[in-house]
Amino acid sequence: MAMHQSVEYTEASAEVRAVYDDIMATRKTDWINNFWKALANDPATLRRTWESIKQIMAPGALDPLIKEMIYIAVSVTNQCPYCIASHTASARNKGMTDAMFHELMAVVGMANETNRLASGYQVEIDEQFKQ
Amino acid sequence: MAMHQSVEYTEASAEVRAVYDDIMATRKTDWINNFWKALANDPATLRRTWESIKQIMAPGALDPLIKEMIYIAVSVTNQCPYCIASHTASARNKGMTDAMFHELMAVVGMANETNRLASGYQVEIDEQFKQ
Amino acid sequence: MAMHQSVEYTEASAEVRAVYDDIMATRKTDWINNFWKALANDPATLRRTWESIKQIMAPGALDPLIKEMIYIAVSVTNQCPYCIASHTASARNKGMTDAMFHELMAVVGMANETNRLASGYQVEIDEQFKQ
Amino acid sequence: MAMHQSVEYTEASAEVRAVYDDIMATRKTDWINNFWKALANDPATLRRTWESIKQIMAPGALDPLIKEMIYIAVSVTNQCPYCIASHTASARNKGMTDAMFHELMAVVGMANETNRLASGYQVEIDEQFKQ
Amino acid sequence: MAMHQSVEYTEASAEVRAVYDDIMATRKTDWINNFWKALANDPATLRRTWESIKQIMAPGALDPLIKEMIYIAVSVTNQCPYCIASHTASARNKGMTDAMFHELMAVVGMANETNRLASGYQVEIDEQFKQ
Amino acid sequence: MAMHQSVEYTEASAEVRAVYDDIMATRKTDWINNFWKALANDPATLRRTWESIKQIMAPGALDPLIKEMIYIAVSVTNQCPYCIASHTASARNKGMTDAMFHELMAVVGMANETNRLASGYQVEIDEQFKQ
Repeated sequence: MAMHQSVEYTEASAEVRAVYDDIMATRKTDWINNFWKALANDPATLRRTWESIKQIMAPGALDPLIKEMIYIAVSVTNQCPYCIASHTASARNKGMTDAMFHELMAVVGMANETNRLASGYQVEIDEQFKQ
Repeated sequence: MAMHQSVEYTEASAEVRAVYDDIMATRKTDWINNFWKALANDPATLRRTWESIKQIMAPGALDPLIKEMIYIAVSVTNQCPYCIASHTASARNKGMTDAMFHELMAVVGMANETNRLASGYQVEIDEQFKQ
Repeated sequence: MAMHQSVEYTEASAEVRAVYDDIMATRKTDWINNFWKALANDPATLRRTWESIKQIMAPGALDPLIKEMIYIAVSVTNQCPYCIASHTASARNKGMTDAMFHELMAVVGMANETNRLASGYQVEIDEQFKQ
Repeated sequence: MAMHQSVEYTEASAEVRAVYDDIMATRKTDWINNFWKALANDPATLRRTWESIKQIMAPGALDPLIKEMIYIAVSVTNQCPYCIASHTASARNKGMTDAMFHELMAVVGMANETNRLASGYQVEIDEQFKQ
Repeated sequence: MAMHQSVEYTEASAEVRAVYDDIMATRKTDWINNFWKALANDPATLRRTWESIKQIMAPGALDPLIKEMIYIAVSVTNQCPYCIASHTASARNKGMTDAMFHELMAVVGMANETNRLASGYQVEIDEQFKQ
Repeated sequence: MAMHQSVEYTEASAEVRAVYDDIMATRKTDWINNFWKALANDPATLRRTWESIKQIMAPGALDPLIKEMIYIAVSVTNQCPYCIASHTASARNKGMTDAMFHELMAVVGMANETNRLASGYQVEIDEQFKQ
């Protein structure tokens, strides 16, 4: 990442440090991954993105591990190598087993296949699905 | 769907009927949705796709409702209207609440956003994520 | 298509008519489909796009029917309803049989599935494929 | 691919070896590429994916080289580096010439362009394409 | 949109009304479009999404019309009909001329084409672009 | 890029050199980037692509820097690493500041998010957007 300087904690502004501190406290970790160090070039986006993720990924009607697996499903569909690597690691940390990962991949693969069969065959939406 | 004749049960071959019967028995329903009626124009693809989906979507390390929500995540990312409508209906039938749907959408939206921030900022994969 | 006026032959400029005439002559048909009538709002893009398509879709190392099927594969992957409908019709006109269409769809579906299995499992490119 | 152990033939279970043997026999080759070694972590997906690909990519109404080129068209559209590298190599092995590859790329590029012109101009599907 | 009730102003909670009021005041308009009425089923997402968009789309280093055109470029690439229609209308309201729209479409189409030529030809990133 | 020989100026045909010369003259630079050296394997595509880009990216109703940023928006959405790197470098050369880049990324990220919220909530297009 040559064009975008990675912002390290020691050189960060107070505003950026506050976000870094909250990321580490929330995630109970002592390091910051490259995604946030890149966004830190734009403190407004760093803060907004972190606040949104913190709110969205918190426990709720879906538990955080399920949310991480949904994140992987999207990242794999979009072919984003960084996102696949980082969210697969996060899901592992939250308890994703090999068996869960394998089933996740099977569903993601199948959905990408049938999405195209549905569009290629120009299938019309059933009335029952409109209710 | 003008070009691909929808294959109704009453006019279907024995091979196609056998798949339709298995779909209805497995799903405990008495109708077949348009996706399968379109695929029935190609009995080999109908059978292979159904057998794969039946195996993949069965209870396992992930429960069927979680799998339906992963299916929705992929379909929404790919912008497939038929798939979004049909799998949202299926997830509702399997117990997806409004709260679960809202959190699902929030995660899918966020993942699609950060996938692009990661690629746009050309973020390099952290060594920690390679282990 | 409310915002973009469809440019009919009778109201078209000489520049647009010349492209329309060439489309009809090349395709041995007596009508212009909506795609071109929309592009005609921007004669430079109309001409450039038509000249490119005419050159690219002509017989060469691949025959025109194969090219139409490749066009369908891309359009289905991208979920473009207009493009799926128009290129499926064109491929039919050029001799695509039901059996060919079914096999095309099967390959497109499978490729979309394995594309995601490859990225989700973070598979490294074999040395053999680099030669 | 750090998180997913690559399953080599010598350490594989009998179930996995049976699939590997069939892949090598069908393809008349003596090695297994990384894609299958990754999927082998989940023998059910390995078997299902191989059986599907073997059936779909066999000679039929379309010949295997055409099918490989359709596979490339999808993989390029989805930006999957592994899939592009592996299927381009396969297509070369099946006889794809430079001229064929160049025309394939030209069609894939053009289709990706006009897919967006069609959606951006909000072009309505012609009645003629609905028949 | 059958499954997700559209939340009208008169039936909205105070929390939702506050967002609706801010949308109308910010945009100097007296109606709310369907996107927000759908999100209103999940007030947390409604608020978070509106606050983010309000911040991001405000005048800054790029003017609001340029931002709307970038929004169109993404929506067209993703094939999202709702987003194409709504952001094209917004851009028109902010002064996008026909000539600007035509050039926007030409660039979006071309970028989608060359994105695939670059990946299909497996082009390596030049050292100069890494600085 | 093993399979596609990179065509250097000194070994290029007169036809390819003519395009290379025009690229360097138009861009006021003394080198050719890898994208063109790859396309040069197919002189017809090299020429057509360059002529189209030269026409499309020239100053018009939108200035060249805005066009480069639209190119980045598409490339980031499609996850094309080569295109992101090359067009980000070009935009920098044309005057894109850090602040402009940050806002561009924020809009691209947001658009990718709301594109999915719109489709996932199955939002119907407002009548107002159809005029």
